[in-house]
Amino acid sequence: MKNIGFIGLGVMGSPMAGHISNAGYSLKVFNRTRKKSELWSDEYSGEVTLSPAELAEGCDMVFLCVGNNQDVEEIVLGKNGVLEGLKAGGIIVDHTTTSSVLARTMSVNSSEKGISFIDAPVSGGEIGAKEGTLTIMAGGDEEAFKSSLEVINLYSKFCKRMGGSGSGQLTKMVNQICIAGLVQGLAEGMHFSEKAGLDTKEVIEVISKGAAQSWQMENRWETMLSDFYEHGFAVDWMRKDLGFVLEEATTNGSNLEVTALVDTFYEEIQQKGGGRWDTSSLFRRLRS
Amino acid sequence: MKNIGFIGLGVMGSPMAGHISNAGYSLKVFNRTRKKSELWSDEYSGEVTLSPAELAEGCDMVFLCVGNNQDVEEIVLGKNGVLEGLKAGGIIVDHTTTSSVLARTMSVNSSEKGISFIDAPVSGGEIGAKEGTLTIMAGGDEEAFKSSLEVINLYSKFCKRMGGSGSGQLTKMVNQICIAGLVQGLAEGMHFSEKAGLDTKEVIEVISKGAAQSWQMENRWETMLSDFYEHGFAVDWMRKDLGFVLEEATTNGSNLEVTALVDTFYEEIQQKGGGRWDTSSLFRRLRS
Repeated sequence: MKNIGFIGLGVMGSPMAGHISNAGYSLKVFNRTRKKSELWSDEYSGEVTLSPAELAEGCDMVFLCVGNNQDVEEIVLGKNGVLEGLKAGGIIVDHTTTSSVLARTMSVNSSEKGISFIDAPVSGGEIGAKEGTLTIMAGGDEEAFKSSLEVINLYSKFCKRMGGSGSGQLTKMVNQICIAGLVQGLAEGMHFSEKAGLDTKEVIEVISKGAAQSWQMENRWETMLSDFYEHGFAVDWMRKDLGFVLEEATTNGSNLEVTALVDTFYEEIQQKGGGRWDTSSLFRRLRS
Repeated sequence: MKNIGFIGLGVMGSPMAGHISNAGYSLKVFNRTRKKSELWSDEYSGEVTLSPAELAEGCDMVFLCVGNNQDVEEIVLGKNGVLEGLKAGGIIVDHTTTSSVLARTMSVNSSEKGISFIDAPVSGGEIGAKEGTLTIMAGGDEEAFKSSLEVINLYSKFCKRMGGSGSGQLTKMVNQICIAGLVQGLAEGMHFSEKAGLDTKEVIEVISKGAAQSWQMENRWETMLSDFYEHGFAVDWMRKDLGFVLEEATTNGSNLEVTALVDTFYEEIQQKGGGRWDTSSLFRRLRS
């Protein structure tokens, strides 16, 4: 059985690493804040390590799920980073949502040491991580991708390789673009419903049966109506992702008028202290 | 069995009236363009009449499915209109999408003659009309609404009274607001996907399993990719509806930034000759 390393034991990474441990793999874990590693090892079996390099030693595959571009860069390329410890032929799978440029840079640097780097951002949130039902969009070397599936499938019900390095990240960007316009449309619809004096619960009951239906409508209307945003996908993370989107759009010449506009709405929400609220808080912005 | 009248034998009205005829009701029909009435009566049994007033005589209920506010006003209030022929206690059910103000005006004018007017715009398109699976959102007197259900249920699988006069129209507006933002988000996502060099079919396969999922994504991605817009819900009709939405929003103080912006995109499409294209042609606008 392969030796596995997992770096980043946050809200997503902790249950993902847990699934690997539960499947009986020999697992090493690392988290920058040591406390989180200890909390994790209270619940699961695995060796807590002191650096990415120490973790990577003897591993066949190293998985990452951390915060942003800079974290990935430090953990992979930095002093005591993964590339210092991982042997040639090893595979790095990065579940962090980053820019596609970062993914390609990591891939080039890794391949110089005979290591494959797969960008593999996830969708499905904390619940998906816990239940092992994440959707994963991957980019990078096909053979390395196939090898990684025996582990990925422990926490993903659908994982697809979208093409070469960076294409997992680009696919995640398409996802966020669709969501930005969709959630704002839903928020404007519910806002109008309230201003028009309708019973918004009943309105949703009717329109969710037709061409306005969406996952967001079905899964967020109730929390939106009750002004509950302490859950889901935070505005801070959405803005990070939309930053990558808008940067990429400048490069590839996409015209993303509504996405760019909704990004400014999220910026407003952050400025009013709502960075930790769910993306559906676009409704609170209109209501207030 | 009740005597029924049906006015407006267009793409939607023709099959709707057909369901009433097939159920064995004594049915009179009227269409401004006589030719359409004749075509209809080649297929269904029913008496072709020469004016709304003639049609309404002896009817218990009169159903309308016509083009716009002005059509409804003329047919109901005008010379030889429905109110000249329909007896006190009669019910008018209007399936046209109109402004809520028009619905309330028709209701007030009808009630002066002891007639109930129900606004009942539909959702579900030509296919829904043919298959009898329309979703209908109604406003007006509760008793009259209940009486009309024996007929409405012949072509609707879900029909709900949303409140007093005009509230059916207001609910339809919420539907269109949600769709405007949603379809633009989808169009921007697919546009970005192409610019990024991804296989958009595969991208949709992945992201449709998660939080970006929508009816529009599932039912329109394929036609959008193949640049087919000669179907569905026309931009001309969407602009008519968004006109009502934005007028109403000015009155009730709603802030519909994205809806208003998308309306200008639809205006662009009209100006380029795409008024008859499906609303998903927002993608063609970005692609070209």
